[in-house]
Amino acid sequence: MKKHNFSAGPCILPQEVFQEASQAILDFNNSGLSILEISHRSPDFVAVMEEARSLALELLGLQNKGYKALFLQGGASTQFLMVAYNLINKKAAYLNTGTWSSKAIKEAKFFGDVIEVASSKDKNFNYIPKSYSLPEDADYFHCTSNNTIFGTQMKSFPATSRPLVCDMSSDIFSRELDFSKFDLIYAGAQKNMGPAGTTLVIVKEEILGKVSREIPSMMNYQTHIDKDSMFNTPAVYAVYVSMLTLRWIKSKGGLKAMEKLNHQKAELLYAEIDRNPLFKGFAEKEDRSPMNATFNLVNEAHKEVFDKMWKSAGVNGLNGHRSVGGYRASMYNALPLESVQVVVDLMKELEEKV
Amino acid sequence: MKKHNFSAGPCILPQEVFQEASQAILDFNNSGLSILEISHRSPDFVAVMEEARSLALELLGLQNKGYKALFLQGGASTQFLMVAYNLINKKAAYLNTGTWSSKAIKEAKFFGDVIEVASSKDKNFNYIPKSYSLPEDADYFHCTSNNTIFGTQMKSFPATSRPLVCDMSSDIFSRELDFSKFDLIYAGAQKNMGPAGTTLVIVKEEILGKVSREIPSMMNYQTHIDKDSMFNTPAVYAVYVSMLTLRWIKSKGGLKAMEKLNHQKAELLYAEIDRNPLFKGFAEKEDRSPMNATFNLVNEAHKEVFDKMWKSAGVNGLNGHRSVGGYRASMYNALPLESVQVVVDLMKELEEKV
Repeated sequence: MKKHNFSAGPCILPQEVFQEASQAILDFNNSGLSILEISHRSPDFVAVMEEARSLALELLGLQNKGYKALFLQGGASTQFLMVAYNLINKKAAYLNTGTWSSKAIKEAKFFGDVIEVASSKDKNFNYIPKSYSLPEDADYFHCTSNNTIFGTQMKSFPATSRPLVCDMSSDIFSRELDFSKFDLIYAGAQKNMGPAGTTLVIVKEEILGKVSREIPSMMNYQTHIDKDSMFNTPAVYAVYVSMLTLRWIKSKGGLKAMEKLNHQKAELLYAEIDRNPLFKGFAEKEDRSPMNATFNLVNEAHKEVFDKMWKSAGVNGLNGHRSVGGYRASMYNALPLESVQVVVDLMKELEEKV
Repeated sequence: MKKHNFSAGPCILPQEVFQEASQAILDFNNSGLSILEISHRSPDFVAVMEEARSLALELLGLQNKGYKALFLQGGASTQFLMVAYNLINKKAAYLNTGTWSSKAIKEAKFFGDVIEVASSKDKNFNYIPKSYSLPEDADYFHCTSNNTIFGTQMKSFPATSRPLVCDMSSDIFSRELDFSKFDLIYAGAQKNMGPAGTTLVIVKEEILGKVSREIPSMMNYQTHIDKDSMFNTPAVYAVYVSMLTLRWIKSKGGLKAMEKLNHQKAELLYAEIDRNPLFKGFAEKEDRSPMNATFNLVNEAHKEVFDKMWKSAGVNGLNGHRSVGGYRASMYNALPLESVQVVVDLMKELEEKV
């Protein structure tokens, strides 16, 4: 049966990528060797790493603007720590829009004072705070562009003279933005970019080297920049599959095309959430994420029936996170419009049924 | 043409593992989904993580002895840092047997004093120091069991009342040892255990929690223990392929069988290195590694001919590391005896030719 994968991450990637990624396990580049058994210093893999780094900058429009792209390990959770290790002298400003922001704040406190400029915790993070001022003496301002768990997304970013740092784990490469406003962007690969196991870091080199503390080698962005993201053995396969996915994004028309399709999918699903009297959306309308739509049943009594319906229809990963309950439809780049239509049809079917 | 892969790491893994690993990219466990697109919280992947952790302890004979197995990210290079972060109060003792030991020492110095109890740097690390005393007031003693670059291996480990920490990246699961002598073992997966992208850490829980510093979440072993190695999204695919490789090791007879085959391969190659007047071994005989045999031509003039010979014969990765020059034959678990015979035959052929 055809599967419709709404998993929040790791999540659906393009079928073409799976085909090529599977073949490379058996024979990479007609070398007679698996990609899993080649040296990361081999010309074939060095070319993969370089193409992945270059495509990441190209797709974001950041080539030749002083940025470096790195593929590191340890997930966004390690970036919560590395950002602070490398950038806090005295204090940093954080916007708290959910679980991931809160975790980033916790780690930053190991290195300095954290000013939480605003938080949407008062309403279980169902909106993005908008009226807040940024301290002009902070070492940087940190925000989370998309909140996977709560289904909210920042549509705009505050103007600041301080370095702007953003965790874009769950919406990078999904929409057009002026990415040159950001000084450091990081993203775990396992949403729009690739499989779990590598983390993209894009950093404007000029913001580094301004803290007085000594930084251990693996925690220091400069270490990785100086070695072209190959200071130590990288996550070879995760970088390779990310490179394939970035190639796919480019071949489909880049971020403009991704945004268009993501917009269509989101429109389709949110329209049904708003129309169907059995369902209600969780996030404030203006802050809704096109990546993760969070919604609940008005009457929980229908849960058993609806769960059975979507599971029988080959739909995967529609359960909501425990912090929100209900449902979460994650509609990353590789999810076809057709899969969203399947869920919308099931919602209509439930309405007719009950 | 059949390839003979002597790459130092990432390196050869069993062909059966490649087959299954390739299939799982297209359809994992007959789920209709790729292993790259499933949630790490799905029962299917949780089972993979649990089996990998359990097999690691079982193969080392460490079940029910107070040890926890973790599959982390960041390579041994991150462990150089984490070991010190979690275990140094004042000072630690390190044995310096090469590049990796030296790097471990460098990172440890961020957290306390390092006593280098002995070093083989005087002879370009071609031997393992044996007469040294361990300070009984050190927080732990750290050593590197196998030195990939120089081709040496520790055959025995010093008795100490202090916690014994060992980087076994390049010889874990290759031989029988009393692993219960160790309190913390770590190993990048990309030699005998799996592909690049995950790092096995085996730690005796009782040695943790004895330092006064606060430890950031991702750097703290206890964080990962408390969450069954799933504090954050793990390197799903690298853990899966490691699990397949550990299954393979068990199915072949465990470490006893691996050691026997590794001994045969090493005997075959070192015998030819010693017999053939055109070659000389690099490491001291008593310290030779069965994993990585380092050897040089007596007369560098034969290099061009020999390189052409082995490259034409489908041999891969035989070039020595720049620190030693010449050749390095890495003979990890999955390398068949037949591949070693190919190289030995080529060495004999060179002798006849010149």
